[in-house]
Amino acid sequence: MLKFYYARNSCALASHIALEEAAAPYEAIRIDFASAEQRGPDYLKINPKGRVPSLQTERGILTETPAILAFVAQSFPAAKLAPVDDPFTFGRIQAFNSYLCSTVHVAHAHGGRGYRWADEETSFADMKRKVPQTMRECFTLIENGMLEGPWVCGDAYTICDPYLFTISGWLARDQVDIAEFPKVNAHAEAMNKRPAVQRALQAQQT
Amino acid sequence: MLKFYYARNSCALASHIALEEAAAPYEAIRIDFASAEQRGPDYLKINPKGRVPSLQTERGILTETPAILAFVAQSFPAAKLAPVDDPFTFGRIQAFNSYLCSTVHVAHAHGGRGYRWADEETSFADMKRKVPQTMRECFTLIENGMLEGPWVCGDAYTICDPYLFTISGWLARDQVDIAEFPKVNAHAEAMNKRPAVQRALQAQQT
Repeated sequence: MLKFYYARNSCALASHIALEEAAAPYEAIRIDFASAEQRGPDYLKINPKGRVPSLQTERGILTETPAILAFVAQSFPAAKLAPVDDPFTFGRIQAFNSYLCSTVHVAHAHGGRGYRWADEETSFADMKRKVPQTMRECFTLIENGMLEGPWVCGDAYTICDPYLFTISGWLARDQVDIAEFPKVNAHAEAMNKRPAVQRALQAQQT
Repeated sequence: MLKFYYARNSCALASHIALEEAAAPYEAIRIDFASAEQRGPDYLKINPKGRVPSLQTERGILTETPAILAFVAQSFPAAKLAPVDDPFTFGRIQAFNSYLCSTVHVAHAHGGRGYRWADEETSFADMKRKVPQTMRECFTLIENGMLEGPWVCGDAYTICDPYLFTISGWLARDQVDIAEFPKVNAHAEAMNKRPAVQRALQAQQT
């Protein structure tokens, strides 16, 4: 059985939802960021990067959200979470998820994890002040072209959707009103109604 | 025919090498960052994010290095650049490339593009000072486990290799001596000997 390592309020929610959508057999294991469990020796054996998510499979461990999402889609094809045999459409899905991990998640992270990239408190404060602007710029691009609607890839629900939902869920914390982006807002509302999303959210909060 | 948009000294080199390795039919088009061509109206029609690389296919445009690399591997299977039908091995490849785009490239970018995440000159200087440390941390992880050797995935050359080569080529600029990392160093030397790598480098420099 798959073992899925996550932390509350982290990007691991995206993979958690995908596992639920795929009806994958898995055990979810919470890593406690408050006690820095992700930097402890036990977890570093699982993921030397000290991050979540991690997915232990029978062949070894996978990390990084875009990789885990594609793995889930490919391993449970009945759920039709990504057309892996169509290189172009799969490429568009991967491009979307890659943008989220390398640009949007990174923009958000500057609000609370400035110490990753600088050392001075004044720099952290400067970075934190800019987060609403950078997140707004990212979501303007998403709203105006990348999100086709109702799902990211139009009528087909894919592995882009749990990932977008996870990150758009951080907008309020980043002092951006999701209502500025009507398509993103409608997407989040539609996601909240999906049973798989509700199961993943509930599992993470109890 | 594919149209490939790149800029000199950018991460687009990885996709450029992959296109050469795959013997893909493509035309390479240079975008001039010095004159901010990537923010001009013509290029923004191709890629509204104002970044490289972009790959124009007969079905539309793909962006983001990990997505383009996987697309090339999948579209030109004879080159065996990634075992796309093996979800686990493909997942490992994607995890590696995702780490490069979301963590290592981002660490590097704080040396020259601090304005993306902050507004004050003092913050830019602070970020720039930290780049050797963060790049060293990333390459320590790569050296001590992620890079199997001689290629990233062991004996099989894959789409991870041009991407690692591209980013390890930035270490000198980031004031890190690649010789601190013997496996990474040997990897770069082996890459430099490949005809496809030489062709891509030459095309970008002439």
